[in-house]
Amino acid sequence: MTTSHPAPPQSAEQRAPGSVQDSALLRAARREPVPHTPVWFMRQAGRSLPEYLQARGDTTMLQACSTPDLVTEITLQPVRRYGVDGAILFSDIVVPLHAAGIDLEIVPGTGPVVAHPIRTAADVDALPELDLAQVEPVAQAVRQLVGELGGTPLIGFSGAPFTLASYLVEGGPSRNHEHTKAMLYGDPGLWRALMDKLARIAATFLEVQVRAGAGAVQLFDSWVGALPAADYRAAVQPHSRFVLDTVAALDVGRQVPRIHFGVGTGELLADMAAAGADVVGVDFRVPLDDATRRIGPAHAVQGNLDPAILFAPWEAVERRVRETLDAGRAAPGHIFNLGHGVIPATDPDVLHRVVDLVHELTAQ
Amino acid sequence: MTTSHPAPPQSAEQRAPGSVQDSALLRAARREPVPHTPVWFMRQAGRSLPEYLQARGDTTMLQACSTPDLVTEITLQPVRRYGVDGAILFSDIVVPLHAAGIDLEIVPGTGPVVAHPIRTAADVDALPELDLAQVEPVAQAVRQLVGELGGTPLIGFSGAPFTLASYLVEGGPSRNHEHTKAMLYGDPGLWRALMDKLARIAATFLEVQVRAGAGAVQLFDSWVGALPAADYRAAVQPHSRFVLDTVAALDVGRQVPRIHFGVGTGELLADMAAAGADVVGVDFRVPLDDATRRIGPAHAVQGNLDPAILFAPWEAVERRVRETLDAGRAAPGHIFNLGHGVIPATDPDVLHRVVDLVHELTAQ
Repeated sequence: MTTSHPAPPQSAEQRAPGSVQDSALLRAARREPVPHTPVWFMRQAGRSLPEYLQARGDTTMLQACSTPDLVTEITLQPVRRYGVDGAILFSDIVVPLHAAGIDLEIVPGTGPVVAHPIRTAADVDALPELDLAQVEPVAQAVRQLVGELGGTPLIGFSGAPFTLASYLVEGGPSRNHEHTKAMLYGDPGLWRALMDKLARIAATFLEVQVRAGAGAVQLFDSWVGALPAADYRAAVQPHSRFVLDTVAALDVGRQVPRIHFGVGTGELLADMAAAGADVVGVDFRVPLDDATRRIGPAHAVQGNLDPAILFAPWEAVERRVRETLDAGRAAPGHIFNLGHGVIPATDPDVLHRVVDLVHELTAQ
Repeated sequence: MTTSHPAPPQSAEQRAPGSVQDSALLRAARREPVPHTPVWFMRQAGRSLPEYLQARGDTTMLQACSTPDLVTEITLQPVRRYGVDGAILFSDIVVPLHAAGIDLEIVPGTGPVVAHPIRTAADVDALPELDLAQVEPVAQAVRQLVGELGGTPLIGFSGAPFTLASYLVEGGPSRNHEHTKAMLYGDPGLWRALMDKLARIAATFLEVQVRAGAGAVQLFDSWVGALPAADYRAAVQPHSRFVLDTVAALDVGRQVPRIHFGVGTGELLADMAAAGADVVGVDFRVPLDDATRRIGPAHAVQGNLDPAILFAPWEAVERRVRETLDAGRAAPGHIFNLGHGVIPATDPDVLHRVVDLVHELTAQ
């Protein structure tokens, strides 16, 4: 008997009821029937939660991200509060760069600031590799989290090569990515060398998390929506594919679904899927049924309630949650999420009601 | 004899060789044969030019925009320097709001800051109308410019209702537009009332410029790419259409092509065309041949070289200019432009070479 299902066989133990492998989130990612539509929120851990602000206190972001007990606590907070179907590792896109020894800091109100922007061949040559041991605090946090979370999957997290490149080449957040694009368009060889290095760093950072027990990963390409599709395919996709393929090839005795998301990527959805994603995250600009038509039936989708809608009265939120679920039925698997991260001023009670509503409307 | 051409008959005098009506820019906008592909740059007047910084001196942006001699000088600077095929009125999106009496300022490094954000029905009721007399300095600048520019068209300029609404509701520039969307999704009646008022202000602001002699107009919707297409059609398009239709209906004895542009609008191109645009501006994420397929043959396109590419070596810039021109041949009319505004750090000499290259490659 043949089946179109792509998953390799799993042991009975791994798929036991109540296990991570049997969770709604991993089932949806594998395009299997679900007990309810799983839901989590990008940036669910963080500034929108009072308990986060209390836990962080005066600790800097980079300190917090390398303190296992703090990562564990902050990652668990939204799971406790909302009953979401997945935990996302509390981290920052630049954590693996910092861990590898690149001189940068995260400036509150600004974002990452890189001491020496990467612009020349010598700069690229001098970029360090990431050694597994350098992110041992992250591995420790993941092990603790997996122990605490029980049947709720922990989603590992890394920035994608293009977004890492933009931070390093610009020296910080950028509206236009002009130095990054100058390298990409003007010196393709140097660009490839940079992206090769960053893909290895991202792959290593995810490998650490998967080996420590992460049940899924999300490769987050914040800025890649700044590229047309042809340039994405030529200059970015091979490097994102390296990262996602590395995760797929890890011999850890279980399937680890790969979620891939970027903002403003309506033009890129099919190509991001083809980079090796099991699940394509969709931003709020493209309805999930449209997205599914672009991506095809071989991938689940994640998304995509506009986080700004959470500032409207509940009736409007509820209508949009229903519409998102309806559109998601066109996909062979749907993980409910926002179409972008939680806005810090969001009322946590509204997020809680969204989780309950999604569960209530989709319970089988 | 019937013709598919939408233009009303023009007098022989108006279409005389060397006249604005016979210019490459207006011919391309009307989808007629052109002597060469016309080119201008969004934000061609402004911070990228040393002569602009000298002319502005310590004058605030809002003062500058209401000083006819300064508007005239700054608008003419890039025409003199680059030989572009169109002048764009030097202004700011919030100028008509300020002129109508709304308390706001433009803070350097931040953007517009509105003293009292518009959130309630009382706020919307209290919004003033714009009287033609309140923008007489702009009308005077336009008259002076038309006198100076000879056969080069002056493109009038206004922010579109959605973008005006975002500034007023958020109180300034916003990453997520959460208060704007909360009103749009949560209180559609109030939203319509706000957009009706802003559409009248934008329409009046363009009417002033057209009556004073502007040869074309650009309705600029900076932030509308933050909306999915269905929401655009329901909550924005009718109001943008009011503005564009008002311009079309002005009895000024000549055709005034309407250009309509927004950033990140790949999902909205067909709907923005249908709002009443003769020319649809396309940002750099969607190639012009793709854009033309979405928009259809009844509209010219404008764009769409990525302004960040101007930071790459000339060989890369030249290749991209050629690709943009090639893709633009799919459209029934093409006005060459950037896919977003000039980045302030751009080297003016590169812009000059782009103008010369476009003219050289397309001369008939």
